[in-house]
Amino acid sequence: MTSWLNIPSDSDFSIHNFPFGIYQLLEGGEARVCSAIGDFIIDLGKANDLDFFHDLHISNKVFENQYLNDFIALGKNTTHALRLRLQQMFSEENYLDAKVLFEYFSYEKKQVKLLLPVKIGDYTDFYSSKEHATNVGMMFRDPANALLPNWLHLPVGYHGRSSSIVVSGTPIHRPKGQMLPPEGGDTPIFGASKRLDFELEMAFIIGKNTNMGDTIATSEADNYIFGLMLFNDWSARDIQQWEYVPLGPFLGKNFASTVSPWIVTLEALAPFACEGPKQEQQVLPYLEYEGEKNYDIQLSVAIQAEGSEEKIVSQSNFKYMYWNMAQQLAHHTINGCNMNVGDMLASGTISGSTPDSYGSMLEIAWKGTKPITMPDGTERRFIHNNDTVIMRGFAEKDGVRVGFGEASGKVIER
Amino acid sequence: MTSWLNIPSDSDFSIHNFPFGIYQLLEGGEARVCSAIGDFIIDLGKANDLDFFHDLHISNKVFENQYLNDFIALGKNTTHALRLRLQQMFSEENYLDAKVLFEYFSYEKKQVKLLLPVKIGDYTDFYSSKEHATNVGMMFRDPANALLPNWLHLPVGYHGRSSSIVVSGTPIHRPKGQMLPPEGGDTPIFGASKRLDFELEMAFIIGKNTNMGDTIATSEADNYIFGLMLFNDWSARDIQQWEYVPLGPFLGKNFASTVSPWIVTLEALAPFACEGPKQEQQVLPYLEYEGEKNYDIQLSVAIQAEGSEEKIVSQSNFKYMYWNMAQQLAHHTINGCNMNVGDMLASGTISGSTPDSYGSMLEIAWKGTKPITMPDGTERRFIHNNDTVIMRGFAEKDGVRVGFGEASGKVIER
Repeated sequence: MTSWLNIPSDSDFSIHNFPFGIYQLLEGGEARVCSAIGDFIIDLGKANDLDFFHDLHISNKVFENQYLNDFIALGKNTTHALRLRLQQMFSEENYLDAKVLFEYFSYEKKQVKLLLPVKIGDYTDFYSSKEHATNVGMMFRDPANALLPNWLHLPVGYHGRSSSIVVSGTPIHRPKGQMLPPEGGDTPIFGASKRLDFELEMAFIIGKNTNMGDTIATSEADNYIFGLMLFNDWSARDIQQWEYVPLGPFLGKNFASTVSPWIVTLEALAPFACEGPKQEQQVLPYLEYEGEKNYDIQLSVAIQAEGSEEKIVSQSNFKYMYWNMAQQLAHHTINGCNMNVGDMLASGTISGSTPDSYGSMLEIAWKGTKPITMPDGTERRFIHNNDTVIMRGFAEKDGVRVGFGEASGKVIER
Repeated sequence: MTSWLNIPSDSDFSIHNFPFGIYQLLEGGEARVCSAIGDFIIDLGKANDLDFFHDLHISNKVFENQYLNDFIALGKNTTHALRLRLQQMFSEENYLDAKVLFEYFSYEKKQVKLLLPVKIGDYTDFYSSKEHATNVGMMFRDPANALLPNWLHLPVGYHGRSSSIVVSGTPIHRPKGQMLPPEGGDTPIFGASKRLDFELEMAFIIGKNTNMGDTIATSEADNYIFGLMLFNDWSARDIQQWEYVPLGPFLGKNFASTVSPWIVTLEALAPFACEGPKQEQQVLPYLEYEGEKNYDIQLSVAIQAEGSEEKIVSQSNFKYMYWNMAQQLAHHTINGCNMNVGDMLASGTISGSTPDSYGSMLEIAWKGTKPITMPDGTERRFIHNNDTVIMRGFAEKDGVRVGFGEASGKVIER
């Protein structure tokens, strides 16, 4: 499928994508729902005004919105039909109306600011990469028994903080807090984190409510997954290490998390579904699944020191996840926990099997013992002030590319 | 201060209280903001229509609401003035207008249903009772070193699930999930939790937003605490024990939590402020505080088997908390984590020093070794199906009583 619009061949926003987001004009104005193609954003409310979606009967109030939640709550029947309509509008074959009216419902990306796309109710973070869990277990616990006893039986997860999830581009304040002195001792000191890290993750957004007491079977999970984003689970390792036993990470994580501005729908990612790693331990029946539930999405992390070039420090892939999204959702609801539209479930750090595919500085620099050298000659064990961490992701197959753009954040001193 | 209204002397809702909540008429209609006195609820929108709050300039939209968040967001200057006005209206001295118009802005409690009072954004649970942390440490870790190394240095906390927080009276589905077999072994089984427990807690609601990067000093904390509720942090001990290492409780907790329907303001509780336990470990400066930051609130838990009498299984007190709310808030924000109106911070299980004041069945029946006998002769190690767990709380001093009502929930088979 080709478009009458000139779309750069390496664009994440090909005619096969049409992700959803929220924009505001740089010159000012209200937040509104949008999609993207090539170097343009599409104002869905304006396209609706022009009757492109007339048969879908969507109130314009849904598009005049600070968040996508009302749009998502329309249900996949509607949102998927709208996405297919966008594809038709931009395809070579059916171009007339859309091409003629294009300027009335679109803006160049440089004219707009992209906002946090969704009001996140509850946010859960999993720990579903075996390589990551193994690396962390080797560093902090027993190298011979790096995986804890429950890890192969269930997708370990915990609740995170929603209020501090911000959109790509938002500066990140280096957190202060309690930590043990680096030179040793058991009396904590107070100060700015010296071991500020990123975690390369992907997150998915819930598209359909459940009631308390309901469960979601792995076979039904796709109906509840609206779409995915890139996710940086910023982590202050020194704060985290001192606080996390026995109730888990808290201030080491909840100062900030960064998401990419576009939600790429599960349907746009369907061509990139693939098998996951073979699960070596037989799982309980509610965690069994059929079909291809992993996704081949190429991920990268770059660090850019101020005034210098980017350095790619990790190239990983979402397909490495040991536990897939369907299993995560089945596990999360097996006790009757209810899900709401806009809830976010994140993967946990996505590490591959080689050091150049590890998803955190903790692993890449192996607890500070293997620093990386930056283009300007400085070394990195963790993230410095004024460093920008940039995560990117896209899927590509048979000439079709569907991408996420960026989740980037610059660390500033508080 | 006495009222022209006949208020039972043991009422939680004396003229000194005036908590806030949300009601709906049993006969139907919209959810609306209310307060309480004696056996009545006060419709604040109707009282506003009658000009009782005319000088406060509150839009009636604030009162025509499913949640208190917009009301709370007016700020304490307004909400506290409104509460004092209610006190004036009902006091013996200034009775005329309110007494004459009473029936136009009030309902008997039996005419209404009380709803979840607040849309909870983020929910954090602390672990701030030393007796509780010590009991749990003795049972599951090392009796000689029951407290973990960080416990005396910081108020340990973690994030919980907001979506499954329900108001008193909502049935609780017994959760299913993975657990290790009770007879031992390291391969998990699947089934309904056999060790379903309550946790007696109090929770406070945030009344004022902060920005990311902001901190709240202990001396400023009161400005950010709108009010308190009773809180039952239902816990499935068998599910929790298998899942919680290393990232903390998840499915063992997030199936349900119960709050009382009324938010009692911090100002109504001011007369009951008291000193907390002496903190034996010098804390870092950001956790130091001045003044009385604990509150003398008498708490109880009863279990009622179906068709039988209540059995009081615990009598505890909020004043036992080792870490107070001001310290919890200072700690939670020391890393720059932002707070929003409606966020909820819970205390953790509130246990006293004697078994009859322990705040969970885990402790009361000491891991099942000391079952309690119910009025009908049956034993309880944990909570059975069709048991109702009822938490109550009130403060009383010099003839002044300010109470919370109940947080109750009946456990049903799913």
